[in-house]
Parts: sequence; C-alpha cells; structure tokens
Amino acid sequence: MCRWMAWLGQPVLIEELLFKTQHGIVDQSLHARMGAEPTNGDGIGVGWYGSGDGPALYRGVAPAWSDTNLRELAAHVESPLFLAHVRAAIGSPVQETNCHPFRHGRWLFVHNGYVADFDLLRRDLMLAMDPALFPQIHGSTDTEVLFHLALTLGLQDDPIGALARTVGMVEETARRRGRTPHVQGTFGVSDGDALWAVRYATDGRARSLFASADVDAIKRLHPDNPRAARLSPDDRVVVSEPFSDLPGVWQEIPPDAAVTVRRGGVLEERDFRPAATGAAAA
Amino acid sequence: MCRWMAWLGQPVLIEELLFKTQHGIVDQSLHARMGAEPTNGDGIGVGWYGSGDGPALYRGVAPAWSDTNLRELAAHVESPLFLAHVRAAIGSPVQETNCHPFRHGRWLFVHNGYVADFDLLRRDLMLAMDPALFPQIHGSTDTEVLFHLALTLGLQDDPIGALARTVGMVEETARRRGRTPHVQGTFGVSDGDALWAVRYATDGRARSLFASADVDAIKRLHPDNPRAARLSPDDRVVVSEPFSDLPGVWQEIPPDAAVTVRRGGVLEERDFRPAATGAAAA
Amino acid sequence: MCRWMAWLGQPVLIEELLFKTQHGIVDQSLHARMGAEPTNGDGIGVGWYGSGDGPALYRGVAPAWSDTNLRELAAHVESPLFLAHVRAAIGSPVQETNCHPFRHGRWLFVHNGYVADFDLLRRDLMLAMDPALFPQIHGSTDTEVLFHLALTLGLQDDPIGALARTVGMVEETARRRGRTPHVQGTFGVSDGDALWAVRYATDGRARSLFASADVDAIKRLHPDNPRAARLSPDDRVVVSEPFSDLPGVWQEIPPDAAVTVRRGGVLEERDFRPAATGAAAA
Amino acid sequence: MCRWMAWLGQPVLIEELLFKTQHGIVDQSLHARMGAEPTNGDGIGVGWYGSGDGPALYRGVAPAWSDTNLRELAAHVESPLFLAHVRAAIGSPVQETNCHPFRHGRWLFVHNGYVADFDLLRRDLMLAMDPALFPQIHGSTDTEVLFHLALTLGLQDDPIGALARTVGMVEETARRRGRTPHVQGTFGVSDGDALWAVRYATDGRARSLFASADVDAIKRLHPDNPRAARLSPDDRVVVSEPFSDLPGVWQEIPPDAAVTVRRGGVLEERDFRPAATGAAAA
Repeated sequence: MCRWMAWLGQPVLIEELLFKTQHGIVDQSLHARMGAEPTNGDGIGVGWYGSGDGPALYRGVAPAWSDTNLRELAAHVESPLFLAHVRAAIGSPVQETNCHPFRHGRWLFVHNGYVADFDLLRRDLMLAMDPALFPQIHGSTDTEVLFHLALTLGLQDDPIGALARTVGMVEETARRRGRTPHVQGTFGVSDGDALWAVRYATDGRARSLFASADVDAIKRLHPDNPRAARLSPDDRVVVSEPFSDLPGVWQEIPPDAAVTVRRGGVLEERDFRPAATGAAAA
Repeated sequence: MCRWMAWLGQPVLIEELLFKTQHGIVDQSLHARMGAEPTNGDGIGVGWYGSGDGPALYRGVAPAWSDTNLRELAAHVESPLFLAHVRAAIGSPVQETNCHPFRHGRWLFVHNGYVADFDLLRRDLMLAMDPALFPQIHGSTDTEVLFHLALTLGLQDDPIGALARTVGMVEETARRRGRTPHVQGTFGVSDGDALWAVRYATDGRARSLFASADVDAIKRLHPDNPRAARLSPDDRVVVSEPFSDLPGVWQEIPPDAAVTVRRGGVLEERDFRPAATGAAAA
Repeated sequence: MCRWMAWLGQPVLIEELLFKTQHGIVDQSLHARMGAEPTNGDGIGVGWYGSGDGPALYRGVAPAWSDTNLRELAAHVESPLFLAHVRAAIGSPVQETNCHPFRHGRWLFVHNGYVADFDLLRRDLMLAMDPALFPQIHGSTDTEVLFHLALTLGLQDDPIGALARTVGMVEETARRRGRTPHVQGTFGVSDGDALWAVRYATDGRARSLFASADVDAIKRLHPDNPRAARLSPDDRVVVSEPFSDLPGVWQEIPPDAAVTVRRGGVLEERDFRPAATGAAAA
Repeated sequence: MCRWMAWLGQPVLIEELLFKTQHGIVDQSLHARMGAEPTNGDGIGVGWYGSGDGPALYRGVAPAWSDTNLRELAAHVESPLFLAHVRAAIGSPVQETNCHPFRHGRWLFVHNGYVADFDLLRRDLMLAMDPALFPQIHGSTDTEVLFHLALTLGLQDDPIGALARTVGMVEETARRRGRTPHVQGTFGVSDGDALWAVRYATDGRARSLFASADVDAIKRLHPDNPRAARLSPDDRVVVSEPFSDLPGVWQEIPPDAAVTVRRGGVLEERDFRPAATGAAAA
C-alpha cells in the first residue's frame, strides 16, 4: 500500500536516489519487502523544488518500473529537496489526480496507508474542510482529503500539530459514525525548506518508516560516485523501507513518532499523538 | 464543449453510427460544427446495453479519432441501445472518471454544457446529494454531480421531472450565493428501455440537439447497407449535431424542451422548465 | 515473462475465465506462481471471436488488475473462442502495439517467452519476412516478428508446421550470427475455429503450459454457476498456469509438444521439433 | 501534420515559449493555421539540453493542450536549447515511440511532413540503415526511419549534407519502386551546440518554417517579462508557424533551404537539394 521517499540535502540528480541505489523506490514498486503487498504499480509521482515557481509535480498512471518519462526526468533534473511516491491503490481509481504528491502552494504531501471506512467518512471529512479548498479536490483518495483537512487545521503553521489534529478528527468522526477508528499511515510533508514525517497507526501497528542516520551513511551509499564523495552534513533521506546497499545505516522512526528534518542535517524526533479537536467532522 | 449521441432501436454494430456515418460522433470529435469549439479531444465514452448485467461502459482519455480500442469495440459489439460521448474539458482533468456516460445501476447519463461558477457551487451541490451516493463520486466534473443530484431528486422514477428539479436547485443555489445562475446543457438519460433527452439553457441559448425524424430517414442513412435495409419503425437517433449524409432528416429539439424516446419509434416532446424545489442546496 | 490463456467452447462472458476463477489470468498479472516473475504488469490484451468481421482486439498498457475497461468488457462480451494475455516486458516498450494478441486477418497469436539475442537477429528475421507483411510491423517485440515470420512460412495452412519452421529459422539465424540459439516459449494461435498451442525451449526448459482435462473438469470450475451447469463436451481451456480452484483437473502439456484443440472437446497432442528450413534468415 | 519549434539561446523556462507566448506550439496543437489540419493532438515531445548526460526527452500520447505533466515540466525546467513537437498522426499509431523528438546519443531530431508511399518503401529504407542502428527502431513512423538513415549517411559529421543524401535516397528508392517520389517536410536537428533546420518538398510546396529575425524581435516577445528584458544576441527561435504576438518579426525560411543556427545569434542560410547517392535503398 504505497512506498515513498524524501530527500533533503544538496542538489542531486533525482535518479541517484530513484534508480541508482539498490532497492530504491522504483525497485520497491515491483519488489517491496515491508509493505502489505510487494507490488506498488498503480501510478507514481515526484514533486521537487528547483527552477520555476513553487514545487514541480510529475505524476503518471504507469508503474514506476516502466515509466520512461520518469526515468528521463530523474536523469536530467537536479533538486535539493524532493519527494517520490509509488502507489498501490486500494479501491480508488488509478488516475493522475489520485497520485501523490499532492500540492498546495509551496506544500507537498505524500502518504502511505489508509483510513478505514473512508467511504462512510468521506462526506463528513470533506465538509470539515475549508470550503475555499473544496474546488481543489480532483480525485477520490483518502490522502487528498487528509491533506486538505490538514491544510484547514493549520498545516502551514504547524505541520505536525495539524496532522495530529487531522488524525484526531478522523478518529472522532469514525467514532461518531459508530465505527472503530483506524487510521494507518506514514505521512511526508514539505514546504521546500524543511521536511516533516509522521509514523502512526490507531492500533499501534504502523507502516514502516526510516531515516538515514547521518552523512557518513549517505557517503557509503555511492562510494565510487563523485557526487557522493562531496556529500555534506546537509543530506538526509526518509524512506518507507531502506535501500538495501546500506545495511546498518538506517534508523527506524518509531511508531507514533514524528520527525522534522532541516538543512544542516538536523533531524528532530518527537512523539505523535492524535489531538482532540473537541468535535468530530460533520 | 462535448458532443453526444444515443441510439434506441434494433441491435446494430456500434460502428454503424460512430464510424460509418458521415460526420458521426467520432468525426465530431475533430470537426464539430455547432459546438463552441471544433475539437472534442478530451476523452470519450460509450455505454451500451447488451450481454451481461446492466449497461457496459468503455471510457478512455485518448481522443476518439485515435482510440484504436474504441474502433475495435464499435466494430464488434452490437447493441439495441447505446450512448456515446466525446468530451471537450473546460477546466477539469482529462481522466476516465471525468468521461461520460456516468452510470448508476441500470442508468446512464451524458451531458453537453456546463454549470457556471461550478467551483463555487460544487460543495453546496454535493451536500445536497443523498449521502449514500457520495462515495460514488470519483471525478471532478459538474456532470457527475448533476447526475447524482438528479438521482437524489428522483431520476429513477421521473427522469425529466428530476432533471427539472436538479436544474432548478442549481439555479437557486447560484442565486443564494449571489451569482446570476447559468446552466447550459443538453442531457441524455437511459435506463435500458427508454431514452430521455433535454435541451435547456438558463438564458435561452441552449446547445444544439436533434432527433431523427422517422424510420425512413434512418433507412436513407445507409441505402446500400443490408442492415439499414431491414430497419424497423423502432429505430431512433438523438444527436448533438446531425450526421451530414442525411440532409432534411433531422428535427431540431427546441430550446427548453425534453423528449422521451420509447421502443416502437415513439418520440414525445414536451416543455422543460426548471422546477422550484423550495430550497437551494446548502 | 507473460501469462496467457485461451478458451474454446460455448459462448461465455469473458469475465467467467478472467475474473471469476481463482488465480485466473488477471490474478496472474499480479501473483504469477510459475513464471520468471510474479508480476505481469506491462499491458494486456484480449482477442475474441464474436459479432462483426474477424476477431476483435482490446489491448491496453495498464496492468490487468487496474484496467477498468478490461473489467467492463469482460463482464459484457460473450465469446465462444478468445485468447487473453498479460505481459511482462523484457526490454521493449510498454505500448499497445507491443501487446498480444497480434492479429492478421482471422488469425490471432499470443506468446510467452523470448528469443535470445533478439536485437542482433531482428534485422535478419524481418528481412526473411514476406515484404508484403513488413508494413504491418508497428511495434518492437520478438513476438510480432515471430508471428509475421510464421505467416510467411505457412501459418494459415499448417500452424504447427509453420511454427516449427519459424523456430528452426530463428535458431539457424542465431548460429549463423555466431550465437548459441535460444528460443523459449509457449505459443497460442487461432483462426476462430480451432486453437493451436506449442510448448518449446531450445534447451528443454520450456515455460509452463496446461490444458483442461475434460468437460467434467470445467463443470467443477463453477458448480454453482448456471452457465457452468450447462457446459458441453465442447469446452476447453489452455493456460500458462492453472486456475487454483480446480486441483487435479489440469494436464500439463509436455515440453516440446504441440496441441490442437477443435470443437467437440478434441485435444490432440504431438511432438514439436524445430524444422530445418535449409537456410538461416539473412 | 505536426508543428515544431526550437530554441537556442540563453537558458529559459521552457514554458516561456510553449505556454506564455501567443499562438505558441501548444496553442498550435489545437489551432494550427498553416498546417494541413488545425489539430495536432496525437502526442507531444520535448527534448532539452541541461542537467545530466545528453539531452532529456519527455514524450507523451496525450494532446499538448491537456498534458498536465508537460505544463509542469515546462514551468520548472530551464534550458538553453530545446526542441518541442506536437504530432498529427497520418496512419501510424499514437504511441510514445512514434513521438518526436527522436534521439541518438547527443542528437535530437524532429520532423513535420511525410514520405509518400512509406509503407511500400519502409523495408528498403530500413535495410539501407546501418544494421547497428536497427535495434533502436521501436516505433513505426517515417520520421524514425529518416533519422536513422540520416545517421547512417553521416548526420553527426554533416547534418545538412546527410539530410540531403537521405532525401535523395528516399526519392531514388521511390523511383526504383515505380512511384513518383514525394518527400515533404521540415526537419529540425541538434547536437546540443548548434541547430539545423531544413525546409523541403519534392514538388516545391514545402511546409511552412520560420526563424526569428534578430534579438530585438525576441525582446519584443515579452516586453514586460524581466527574463525577456535581459535577452542577448544569442537567442533564436525556429518555428513551424509564427507566434502571433510578434508580427513583422519572423522571417520565412524559403522552400528548399537549410539554416544553421549557432551560439551568438548566428543564422546561416543555404540552398537544400537532395543529393544523389548513386544507389537507391534496396
């Protein structure tokens, strides 16, 4: 049910992390090891910060492993901060508007997981959304709704707090509808400067999520690559599951935790708990 | 802004009407004469009644003129009742879930036209929809919302009446939001037995819509075609704009009118006026 | 490296064999058990005989598991003889013209496997093809070339013999180019009346291929299905790997063997050996 | 039958020329004025030089006007030299491998026009191609064959000369096959440093082709755009038909002429005549 990764560091050709690692995100589209399914073949997306205004999006419905445009782009676009996502659909259509990352202004958002009983909750959650954001909903995923709900609840001021309120509201709404709430997911968010990642599951069994331990780890990623040789302490990767050519390098982000990654290799970790908003969506 | 056609009659290979007429719907995808634009290249759809349960849908994002699967299907599927649609998007994404026909149970729905200020009204209109239908919304067109609103307002019992209430509600909602309402459209609806078509515009300048005059007209469609030679009084076509190889055959459906087509070549016409529902959506 | 199936029998809705069996061909697109890879997500195709002239083709680049048009078609098209194929590309692009079945007049052709050193041999093999067939090559697979070579070498008069000559010519051409020949594959061919299947590998380790044993087997396929209940001795299925809900029913087609399936449940098996054509392509 | 453009100058966001001009190439995909058809909706391509090794390719089968990834790319990729192409297919399938630009190493190639009787000549022309290039043919256009024939005949050493020999060989081959030769086209070629363009038709009625007159012309392109304000004499555009917001700026490249554009705003024009190769392809 989806895999994603995020890079924050010096500018690199995107292919360095998508295609030139062992068991990178593209390989995970076909052979994921830690997901519910090995196959994540229901579309892909890359969002990157670089030239032009705001982040760029490339999204497509072809599987990552056969998308020639993805391969081209990755080989010719450099970026200091990007998120990539491979999708395994669970019910909603395979269409570009259901592919991650989702974007709002300078913000990008990716998600691995799901909201149980989403069909039942979707209307309530869309009503709870800022009406001004409603016209931006072009697809039918839970992720798109969660993102716009998080924007409604303050994502641009306090990303982790807003995600806590979002998850809290979803859980309250499920209870209000007589269901046992179940939100399952890892979330990745960026504004082009920092990167936030959350690992959470209502019942504690969260999807896998890892961060690169430190710059030395990254250097070992491509010992023979001139680009890797000039890595700086600025470089960090967050991934759904580790690249396989760097055993020992990855630190698991614990369940119910959030991390903030900032320039300079800063990685701060804290607990993540759904926040009571006092009222369910409805 | 879209062209559509509907056939109700004896079983024919779909290609007879899509590809083997002059200026049929596929030609209209590239060279429409009566639409706002000559090009309707933003996806296609065919819904047909035949083998299997309920109507079948084929929808695709390629333009009709280059869709080889459409050509194959049309050449090998026979149906006594089908609707075909070529789309010209006005803002919403080109994706299968935005292609017509839309389907609910045995019902199919096509539309040519638009709802002014839809971005502003969309949320209100989706709230007015039966919540049980909400999870069926997978795209982002005004048509999909109108269809589910019409289902909410009784389409399955009284198609023309429900469309009148739907248009009425949209216009009331626009007024309530401080806008001059403008609904523009021709609508085609079927349940597999009968066919309903509406031509309407708030300001009177409705999109074009035509019906074949009688069976003799149809016979002249393909004088050398053995299939055409055995046409019965059962056969009727409704089209956004006439096929060009049958001058004199087409009767314009007047603005603000609705027609009902039933087996036996029955075509009944009546006035169409938006119905007051007493309350705007919201 | 691809999975395929063929049905010859009474008319059935295609979905009976694509979607309503356990571990049917669509499931095999995601979870193949006997192939080189579990995933066959690089496009699909169905060719069927029914209404209209000659066989119909539906081919698409989306994986079978997410292709909504495939699901629709399968649920609404009946056919007494069809071939379905899910593709795992090995190098050539994912495009409709590389999807199976390939078609020539009334003939359909599917293939699972490959020709080693095809890049080196392709030009020679295309030259050996009847020049009149050359313009029909729109893709870049080995299969398309093999099919047109087989047509050149008499497929329409003697399908198994022509395939033996085709494989023979490919092996001779490889030798002439200084390579150890390696043709690997199962082939399925039909003209709308009969069905031919071949299992072969130059080195003896051929891809898997099975045929349904007899009509009683098929009846057990869907004991509660009214359609299955009226099965006749006419019905036969050939598959790359068995459906899982019919243990004990499938008979393996031996390596280096060919079978001919005809109406009336006739299944004849014979040895398959590449035939010397006396001259390599070049 | 296709429109294309090329930019050689200072690095610009690709959108400046694709989307932000009046009647740029994307508008020409829907409303071409000087082509055989107004619609060029059968796929698009952009090839650009920038980061990474060699030129990048983005090719897609959606019409330019609705390709959201094209819009994203154009808004976020800067390049000092790029070619863009919108396709109107005449017979061959709409697939990425039939989209321009075609690429070989550092070389890009676009074409507007056609080779008459290509189905008849294709085999001969493919045989005349360097066998080492044969495996690179993945599509079925005349353009792809012409490009690889030109590579065979020395494109990398003498672009204009090789195109003259290519056209000459095609015409000779047609005559040898008993046909009146007809090659129709404008060609665009680049190696990342210079740009070559040819306008030719066997019968003299060549497709339109224009070049921007000088840097002042370009400056008038976007008088209010800060990027335009800093234009240098280095900047040149070649286009199938002029942007409409720069009347008086475009100089028509005469029929049967070739131009070479080099850094520094150099634009050299010379006659273009097919060169006798002494032997037809065969």
